[in-house]
Amino acid sequence: MLLLGLLGNLVLRLQGQKLQRMMIRSELDSSSETVVVDDDERYWLSWRLAVETNNNVRPWKTVPIRCYKHVENYMTGGQYEHDLNMIVDEIVFYASQIHPTQQDAWILDVDDTCISNIPYYKAKRYGCDPFDSPVFKEWITKGMCPANPVILRLFKTLIEKGFKVFLLTGRYQETLAKITMDNLHKQGFIGYERLILRSLKYKGQSAVKYKSSIRKEIEEEGYRICGNVGDQWTDLQGECLGKRTFKIPNPMYCIS
Amino acid sequence: MLLLGLLGNLVLRLQGQKLQRMMIRSELDSSSETVVVDDDERYWLSWRLAVETNNNVRPWKTVPIRCYKHVENYMTGGQYEHDLNMIVDEIVFYASQIHPTQQDAWILDVDDTCISNIPYYKAKRYGCDPFDSPVFKEWITKGMCPANPVILRLFKTLIEKGFKVFLLTGRYQETLAKITMDNLHKQGFIGYERLILRSLKYKGQSAVKYKSSIRKEIEEEGYRICGNVGDQWTDLQGECLGKRTFKIPNPMYCIS
Repeated sequence: MLLLGLLGNLVLRLQGQKLQRMMIRSELDSSSETVVVDDDERYWLSWRLAVETNNNVRPWKTVPIRCYKHVENYMTGGQYEHDLNMIVDEIVFYASQIHPTQQDAWILDVDDTCISNIPYYKAKRYGCDPFDSPVFKEWITKGMCPANPVILRLFKTLIEKGFKVFLLTGRYQETLAKITMDNLHKQGFIGYERLILRSLKYKGQSAVKYKSSIRKEIEEEGYRICGNVGDQWTDLQGECLGKRTFKIPNPMYCIS
Repeated sequence: MLLLGLLGNLVLRLQGQKLQRMMIRSELDSSSETVVVDDDERYWLSWRLAVETNNNVRPWKTVPIRCYKHVENYMTGGQYEHDLNMIVDEIVFYASQIHPTQQDAWILDVDDTCISNIPYYKAKRYGCDPFDSPVFKEWITKGMCPANPVILRLFKTLIEKGFKVFLLTGRYQETLAKITMDNLHKQGFIGYERLILRSLKYKGQSAVKYKSSIRKEIEEEGYRICGNVGDQWTDLQGECLGKRTFKIPNPMYCIS
């Protein structure tokens, strides 16, 4: 164990890195891989799986602080984008099998689906700090949310194929309609059927209830919801969910 | 052997010849961490998230071969157990808030929930090789499936608290009833309300349909299903799902 630790240390030092790690070796063959995992990484991996996998974990307020470095690495180091690309490839494959008519619709969520709040969350230690409503409002009021490039690719593919794309957000219509529309337009989200924001009628309603009501209205207009994409489970629960739902990752916050 | 392996690994790393590794640096502080990720690990992490997160990925037959080392590491290196423990802690917390009456029931799946088929899957490269029905049958007929210790902990907690625990499996009653009952008993699953296997009536039915019908029957008997735990999405989809469902990980196979 000591020897293993020393060697692990050596490997890491030669890479100019830090200690206190465990070496886990796969004994499969002579060119075996070494996966370096520390306790916090184990915790982070379990935590992320639990929060992304349905409702295993009760609504959570903040990311556990011991996950800070890992959530940052995840969001900025490429894995988040890689995860998104794999899911979007799957969605595009599914969509490619449909020959859409005028009635075939998709629902995409807006925040942290189409456009990203990572710049806000970066300053909040990627969700380790509590949600800061005034600062968040200030941030989205700037209309500077960058496109999520992977979802923009999906969006463009859906539009090109002839689907009617509905963007459905919990943002309030009264205050944020123009800002949101302009932000989306600037970021390349052009050609969608409708952007639906939360009108006063739905004020204070849970996300599941509000979004279910809107999807029901869309279906009552005669649309078939082929797919429904969101970063929150509340986008994908309730009624009139569509033929398939797709959860994209978001380990930074949870809307209950 | 281990030493040689580690040194070999180190040399290979210093030569920079290994699998086009990417270095991801977090820029948090001067003693920053480095997480070493290769393309296959990235792929594995994305793949696992996609298959565990609802139905993002269409039913899959085998684990992609490039995930072999990672799925083995995952199943045998501690992360699988760590993930299970986090979910079971959550389930136990939820169960602790209920004061069960005679009607309060839980549904637990059997294969790779209560008892484990890892010994079979090990020989099938943890799911990278196709499902081998005769060999699998031979394996379960031995009645040697080891307990999943984390789920055994959950099981005992539920029994102790006074819940009625139903074990619900797609295994055929005709051929596997006694073997399964004995296997469970030997592994410590004692005190459950009922073990329900697939009778001829449900032969050939999809897992979702079969399990939904059984849960409906249980509810019609007057039970309330407080929770429903399984390693397959098909355990947790359909009707009469129970008040909460809990997906435990299984990256080795997918029942559609």
